[in-house]
Amino acid sequence: MEIYLDNAATTKPRKEVVEAMLRSLEKEYGNPSSLHKKGLEVEREIKKVRRIVAKALGCEEQEIIFTSSGTEANNLAIRGMIDAYKKNGNHIITSVIEHKSVLNTFNLLEERGFDVTYLEVDKKGFISIEQLKGAINDNTILVGLMHVNNEIGSIQPIAEVGRIIKNINNRTLFHVDGVQAFGKIKFNLKDMEVDSFSISGHKIHGPKGIGALYIKRGTKINPLLTGGNQEMGLRSGTENVPGIYGLGAAVKFAMSELDKNIEYLNGLRNYFIDVFKSKIDGIYIISEKNDKFAPHIISISFPGVKSEIMLHSLEQDGIYVSSGSACSSKRKEYSHVLKALSISDNLIDSSIRFSLSYINTRDEIDYTVEKVKEHYINLRDIIGR
Amino acid sequence: MEIYLDNAATTKPRKEVVEAMLRSLEKEYGNPSSLHKKGLEVEREIKKVRRIVAKALGCEEQEIIFTSSGTEANNLAIRGMIDAYKKNGNHIITSVIEHKSVLNTFNLLEERGFDVTYLEVDKKGFISIEQLKGAINDNTILVGLMHVNNEIGSIQPIAEVGRIIKNINNRTLFHVDGVQAFGKIKFNLKDMEVDSFSISGHKIHGPKGIGALYIKRGTKINPLLTGGNQEMGLRSGTENVPGIYGLGAAVKFAMSELDKNIEYLNGLRNYFIDVFKSKIDGIYIISEKNDKFAPHIISISFPGVKSEIMLHSLEQDGIYVSSGSACSSKRKEYSHVLKALSISDNLIDSSIRFSLSYINTRDEIDYTVEKVKEHYINLRDIIGR
Repeated sequence: MEIYLDNAATTKPRKEVVEAMLRSLEKEYGNPSSLHKKGLEVEREIKKVRRIVAKALGCEEQEIIFTSSGTEANNLAIRGMIDAYKKNGNHIITSVIEHKSVLNTFNLLEERGFDVTYLEVDKKGFISIEQLKGAINDNTILVGLMHVNNEIGSIQPIAEVGRIIKNINNRTLFHVDGVQAFGKIKFNLKDMEVDSFSISGHKIHGPKGIGALYIKRGTKINPLLTGGNQEMGLRSGTENVPGIYGLGAAVKFAMSELDKNIEYLNGLRNYFIDVFKSKIDGIYIISEKNDKFAPHIISISFPGVKSEIMLHSLEQDGIYVSSGSACSSKRKEYSHVLKALSISDNLIDSSIRFSLSYINTRDEIDYTVEKVKEHYINLRDIIGR
Repeated sequence: MEIYLDNAATTKPRKEVVEAMLRSLEKEYGNPSSLHKKGLEVEREIKKVRRIVAKALGCEEQEIIFTSSGTEANNLAIRGMIDAYKKNGNHIITSVIEHKSVLNTFNLLEERGFDVTYLEVDKKGFISIEQLKGAINDNTILVGLMHVNNEIGSIQPIAEVGRIIKNINNRTLFHVDGVQAFGKIKFNLKDMEVDSFSISGHKIHGPKGIGALYIKRGTKINPLLTGGNQEMGLRSGTENVPGIYGLGAAVKFAMSELDKNIEYLNGLRNYFIDVFKSKIDGIYIISEKNDKFAPHIISISFPGVKSEIMLHSLEQDGIYVSSGSACSSKRKEYSHVLKALSISDNLIDSSIRFSLSYINTRDEIDYTVEKVKEHYINLRDIIGR
């Protein structure tokens, strides 16, 4: 029995993704910069994938740049735009619950002399629109926020935030880390005043090693990688062709099945929360059964039992979950996201992230809740003695 | 009939590479940062590949950082070390025949205020040791040179260059772009006073989208990508796991077969030069049959026939070659490498790069020389009229 409930950390590449990658590796192995047929056939396919991604996001294909990860996309957007527009001001804004690829980049910029506002969040992980309004000034060159939080699933009101930013200072750029939103919730860049938006392949059953960045036409960005001028000069380096092929297949299916998957996952998430609430006493569930939360992330605390102990107990049963974010799980420190919610250390220290995919079933959840309950009762007993 | 002679642009991933990638995509799909078994099994495999790469280069595994390409490795080394050591001086040195990922990065640094010396090369593509000696001063913080030139195959005397640099100023860092050297010629980083060294997967029958950088222990480097602190904090972002698996297989075979391949390719290169010289009059061959040139790159000019016309004529016969470097082939400009050799525009404009792999055969070369001769005579005739 193997129940993989760590889909916010990474997902299993789907069959069609692997097939597309195999085609690239075995047949269409040319360098897209080559002038001959073996280059052109690959260049054409990359163009196709760029179109698929653009359509999925609601933008033009010239506005999509392939990167090696969501992290690279966030770094390129934040570092690249700030470098290009630093003459406009010295103030930048982010929130305290961002993914480390955003937060650590803002920390670095702060060290380098930028004035950074870190927006607080409430107990459920939402920024305050009032605080945001008060923070933007004439010197604010960039606001960087995540769409869906990777640890607790809260969805920031990006469309509203974009309007507010541009109303107060229309020179302020707005970068959105969309890694946990893309393919999981519905949105369209056309409806949002966003200047850049990051996505990642491996969160949507695509391969690791590929991401993409939307950059609004006309927005300047200084590249992090200079060289052969691939990706319209904004990201040099021979393209990760198998990764791009894989991303194309992943996005295609994620979008064609989006409505179905959202409905299915909302049902699964609600069922998950219901059975956990009804079967296990004394737990604390951050995520809620409504559309302010992404349908695939559920954060639950089991007071009295440390996350790592629960994680490894479940592992023995073939159930794979996460303690906080996978990206920072190797460091023995409290999750910065949970800390920001102002909940007790006891809740932070015992928090487990269950993250779902359309391949998970109710049977898997029934088995999981049974095992979690078993471990929770046993472990509390042992620790309580 | 398909004769792929563009192996310096990219190579076909070998069977074992594809198999290793499939294992990652289909079975070992966990996030290496995850604390459970599905993360740990991948983390362990990445460690194995790091060891394989380190052994191949002659360094410690902690000195290897995986990147998304040779271009990223070059950018990380050059930008990252210069940023970390800029207090030591304002002068940097490179050569006029570098790959664009080095040259354009130096150009950018020059724009940003660094004092750059561009070393000239002779008619065969070798730097002058005397010019290098004269260029290094107390303010020189970095020398960046390529090991094997990607367009003409000249091998710079890296070990000698390293000794000279360190003798004159032992604080000067030495970065080597080893993308066209690794797996093609023999060397060991232990014998060379090199502080950083770049390699790429797809030049050695591995996948596109993966590279690596050697950074000498104790050498500081400021990361281009900040975030989850993967790769010892020097390169954040979820690892390109399928790419790393593929790189491991590619390096393993490249190294176990290195002696055999070098011998085979030297023979093939010499045969290539011999048949071209004996069968076609009026051509100019830059590459030579000796160990100052890498065994896989042969640059030949066909005066009177523009490179692109020859390239597309050969394409009709299923023969794939390159005009200059694939990385810059999309731009309609003369190769900066050939220009630097001070050969006539006529030779530059008619230059074709044939690049070999161990999968190429003498029969393929016989067919190629026959077709080239046919086209050359016809095209000269047509153009001469």
